[in-house]
Amino acid sequence: HRAWRGQRPGEAVSALTRQVLASFAGTEDPRTHQLITDLVRHLHSYAVRNDLTEREWTRAIEFLTDTGHITDDKRQEFVLLSDVLGLSSVVDLLTNSRTPDTTPSAVLGPFYVDGPPAAEHGADISDGLPGTPLVVRARVTDEAGEPVPGAVVDVWQSNEDGFYDVQLPELDGPVLRARFHTDPLGRLHFRSILPSAYPIPADGPVGGLLAEVGRHPYRAPHVHFMISAPGHRRLVTQLFVRGGEYLDSDTVFGVKDALVVEFTPQPDGSRLLDYEFRIGRLSS
Amino acid sequence: HRAWRGQRPGEAVSALTRQVLASFAGTEDPRTHQLITDLVRHLHSYAVRNDLTEREWTRAIEFLTDTGHITDDKRQEFVLLSDVLGLSSVVDLLTNSRTPDTTPSAVLGPFYVDGPPAAEHGADISDGLPGTPLVVRARVTDEAGEPVPGAVVDVWQSNEDGFYDVQLPELDGPVLRARFHTDPLGRLHFRSILPSAYPIPADGPVGGLLAEVGRHPYRAPHVHFMISAPGHRRLVTQLFVRGGEYLDSDTVFGVKDALVVEFTPQPDGSRLLDYEFRIGRLSS
Ligand SMILES: [Cu+2]
Ligand SMILES: [Fe+3]
Ligand SMILES: [Fe+3]
Repeated sequence: HRAWRGQRPGEAVSALTRQVLASFAGTEDPRTHQLITDLVRHLHSYAVRNDLTEREWTRAIEFLTDTGHITDDKRQEFVLLSDVLGLSSVVDLLTNSRTPDTTPSAVLGPFYVDGPPAAEHGADISDGLPGTPLVVRARVTDEAGEPVPGAVVDVWQSNEDGFYDVQLPELDGPVLRARFHTDPLGRLHFRSILPSAYPIPADGPVGGLLAEVGRHPYRAPHVHFMISAPGHRRLVTQLFVRGGEYLDSDTVFGVKDALVVEFTPQPDGSRLLDYEFRIGRLSS
Repeated sequence: HRAWRGQRPGEAVSALTRQVLASFAGTEDPRTHQLITDLVRHLHSYAVRNDLTEREWTRAIEFLTDTGHITDDKRQEFVLLSDVLGLSSVVDLLTNSRTPDTTPSAVLGPFYVDGPPAAEHGADISDGLPGTPLVVRARVTDEAGEPVPGAVVDVWQSNEDGFYDVQLPELDGPVLRARFHTDPLGRLHFRSILPSAYPIPADGPVGGLLAEVGRHPYRAPHVHFMISAPGHRRLVTQLFVRGGEYLDSDTVFGVKDALVVEFTPQPDGSRLLDYEFRIGRLSS
């Protein structure tokens, strides 16, 4: 059964859409005009193609309201919604992945903290937390393979249980996050522990959505990197542990094939991550 | 200048969209599956067609967050957003306007209060408020033109200054709203005042949007009607004052030609609204 009967009033809806589009004719900024009118086209087309009912529209309004009300300084449920619908990754691709000769980007995620503690080469950023020991050796180069010395490299990751330091009130101060500077040969190295898979916050509207569509809330295990150097485009990315859980179903669609890398088992039981980041020059 | 350079990564985005769509394969309810996957298609297509940038995406997240935070029990900014984008009227058309032989519907709007005070035929629902006197004579019939006796007819409207009673804290109790029952010939009549144009709440994110695109926040003057009768589809509609302001630019796109009617000037300076509502039978 349906909430309506009879024929879809196609001509009346088309006329209405034209009227709405025309109402934006006075928009001064051309880009704003483009974005808002195409939004109207897509919204109307979505409603018409699906014969959206008032009841479904009401449910959508309630969902957005709940999403707004759970969002605060510490929790951004709209970003989470964008993440699980793959929109964040689409925008990331469109903005940051137009140069095939550089390392692919990945979304920033909610756990970056601006200005992480500076660390020396060789430092253990895990501060002795339990976990599988990890050694990271990395190089930063440009598109031509030339080393980029003095690049600022921020690193952050989850612990063995899948939590970031900011989620653990018993910790005093940052851990499993640090800022390095590449040496004259563009290198950095540090010690840490193997990151674990973790769920995104699933107790809100987005968690409810995932449950309703039969999806789990987990992210594949990864280490975040943000790399900045004068004259170069900033790279925000993640390296995923090959063989880790949820690589094929990362709930925010952050995994790209080129970012799934070996965290190679060593004879002593530790892992070694050896990676070269390629960042792009800023066009002048 | 652009936030990106190089070619749009079309193949990578298409692959991502396919992956996101596939993630919903486990959705049990087929309608939910249709609505969510088509939402993903439209969202991704919107981002790609417009080369949406991270900065624009961030602005959209902030807009939705502000919209959520201003929404409370008394104010629904998401509904307002849907209204000014014409989406509410599209959904209304799709749900309620598939039968050309009944009176067109219009959106409910934010000012309906459930269970208005019962009034006798001939009552003055303006309670002596200043304004141009108005006499309303109406009939409720079915698609065949047969009168519908005993129909419940709720009426509500703005005052001479464009305010509803619920917006005026100095009023004690409802005014310019009432519930009538049609007589054995399907008729009702009452006295009131001519409604005025009024702005939707413009001090929030939606008001900011309207300002940015050069649109005013006004609704054309109208009287709301909600008509229910056993065995018939409920009709929610509005009658607009022919010759009134903003008929061509009603900010929520509620005006339909068939709903613009004469509020005929009388020799004594009052107005007469004479109208026949046609409501549909419920299919069994
Ligand atoms: Cu579309
Ligand atoms: Fe993460
Ligand atoms: Fe109204």
